[in-house]
Amino acid sequence: MAINQLRKDPISGRWTIIVENEVDIPTLIETARNKSTSTHQTVSRCQFCEGNESQTPPEIMSVRTSGTQANVPGWRVRVIPDKAPVLQIYGDLNNRAHGIYDVLDGIGAHEIVIESPRHGETLVDLSEQHISEILWTYKQRILDLKQDVRFRYILVHKNYGEAVGLAARHSYSYVIATPITPGRVKDELINSMDYYQYKERCVFCDMIRQELSEQTHIVSENAHFVAIAPFASRNPFEVWILPKQHETFFEWNSNLEALAAMLKEILFKLYTVLQDPQFVMVLHSGPNVRTGQRRGYWKSLEKDYHWHFEIKPRLAAYTSFEIGSGFTVNFVAPEKAAQILRETK
Amino acid sequence: MAINQLRKDPISGRWTIIVENEVDIPTLIETARNKSTSTHQTVSRCQFCEGNESQTPPEIMSVRTSGTQANVPGWRVRVIPDKAPVLQIYGDLNNRAHGIYDVLDGIGAHEIVIESPRHGETLVDLSEQHISEILWTYKQRILDLKQDVRFRYILVHKNYGEAVGLAARHSYSYVIATPITPGRVKDELINSMDYYQYKERCVFCDMIRQELSEQTHIVSENAHFVAIAPFASRNPFEVWILPKQHETFFEWNSNLEALAAMLKEILFKLYTVLQDPQFVMVLHSGPNVRTGQRRGYWKSLEKDYHWHFEIKPRLAAYTSFEIGSGFTVNFVAPEKAAQILRETK
Repeated sequence: MAINQLRKDPISGRWTIIVENEVDIPTLIETARNKSTSTHQTVSRCQFCEGNESQTPPEIMSVRTSGTQANVPGWRVRVIPDKAPVLQIYGDLNNRAHGIYDVLDGIGAHEIVIESPRHGETLVDLSEQHISEILWTYKQRILDLKQDVRFRYILVHKNYGEAVGLAARHSYSYVIATPITPGRVKDELINSMDYYQYKERCVFCDMIRQELSEQTHIVSENAHFVAIAPFASRNPFEVWILPKQHETFFEWNSNLEALAAMLKEILFKLYTVLQDPQFVMVLHSGPNVRTGQRRGYWKSLEKDYHWHFEIKPRLAAYTSFEIGSGFTVNFVAPEKAAQILRETK
Repeated sequence: MAINQLRKDPISGRWTIIVENEVDIPTLIETARNKSTSTHQTVSRCQFCEGNESQTPPEIMSVRTSGTQANVPGWRVRVIPDKAPVLQIYGDLNNRAHGIYDVLDGIGAHEIVIESPRHGETLVDLSEQHISEILWTYKQRILDLKQDVRFRYILVHKNYGEAVGLAARHSYSYVIATPITPGRVKDELINSMDYYQYKERCVFCDMIRQELSEQTHIVSENAHFVAIAPFASRNPFEVWILPKQHETFFEWNSNLEALAAMLKEILFKLYTVLQDPQFVMVLHSGPNVRTGQRRGYWKSLEKDYHWHFEIKPRLAAYTSFEIGSGFTVNFVAPEKAAQILRETK
């Protein structure tokens, strides 16, 4: 199979992964009309279910009952490579020009974290203990993938709900390692660095201090974490979870039980208010400093950047105004969202 | 009614329009489940249909049979203000801080260009002559709105198809004037300026030269315009239409008939191949230089920036990877899309 390409648009500066495959237009049209069928929709055929381990590629790691072997039942969280990775693990980047354009080979890692052995359970249904094991799994995968100096960034993220492309009813998330820092994260890293240079303070810490003092955007807090409906929320009922103490890298955190409790609480509030909404959850954390990019570039990284989870309910598709401009239009002020979520127990 | 706010996220640097209204959660949930009903779905009740002019706010301009008066039948293209504008025309920006955050009042213009008096007709159904009248209307609205020094940018764009929020079956587009340059356009302006500083050439002109020489991404060309499936297309079957001769501002163009012919041809190809797909169409053109921003900032604007239309079919919702990273994953290589579209007559 030909290798996918990472291509940079010289106009917008943004990167796209161009997948090398045959173009099947009827399937494209079917997918667009939301009639696509999942290959693992029913329990008996679901490759992610306990007992069907042999239907997936061999596991990369798992959290399982001691004494049980890899690739058999007994696990609670299981990590496998994606069967059709958009970025593949073997090879070199082969950084090159095509005339005025920049191209890289699509090298990276594309892993699936199966969050539960049981079909139909979602993240909000799981115990705090179980959620903390999922978070611990993310941490282990980040630590492992950061050993590879080809990978500048490890992105942990999750789709929940059909309209964001997930037809299956088995709960999972993704860990994707990328050979360039994703643009969205890079914007955050640069803005945080600029803010630090000007103020000598972390912009996230300043935000947390202001929000804890004003209280209007606070959704919840515990000893270690705070959940905020951000002042410039791009989506209705968007919530960020941040560690109260400054911390650059998620994988440094040692309070995963408190984080699991906060995550479950926020997901429960969203589930209750919005009646089981579709959502996207993304972890934004510091990049891989082993690649050598840091010394020259992210000079105050440990002081200026602050990891966090972003949870974005999907209540409407993006409009042409939003796609064309980069603005978003949010019909629910975050102070109202925070109040509604605070009052939901 | 309270004024909407434009709020900047200090972390990402992106702006959001926060709409001031009552939060109606059942409606939000209904909308998310695509059960929203349009207020103008049937011909008899459609406010955009010829004969129903009194149901809309008074028209801003129209292209109509000579001798007919404003706000009565006889028009072919009609521009009205949006009844529920996200940005309102009256007031000052009131640029201010809220602690560490930046806030502006939601000042701007939000206009609807009704593209045809007839219900159910879409852009691809219209004659080239009629489409050129729509393009001429865009030009007039841009020229008029750029007189207002509060507006840094005029964004012309169009949603087609339900999943991008348009339940109606009456064809229209938007003209929105914004008090800050949209981030997506600003990225293009900055990248084009940087490229010009380095090369002393327009990056778009270089792209057009390379594509016309290689031919692999060319979808169509006529005497004045070229349609390209961009090398780093973010969406399957994305097509850009650009003037072959360097031109910064759409409103300077005097070949609107040739542009209308090209637009109709491209829409017909997409309609045929993808069976009437949803799409987003956006005009990216130079910003308003009357605001004074140019002298200090866009120093080589006339030489470095090149207006164009971007047409993006919507075959799938964005995934959590795309939303969290800013990468997109495109399952149709643009060279394949270009070939398929070229061969579709």
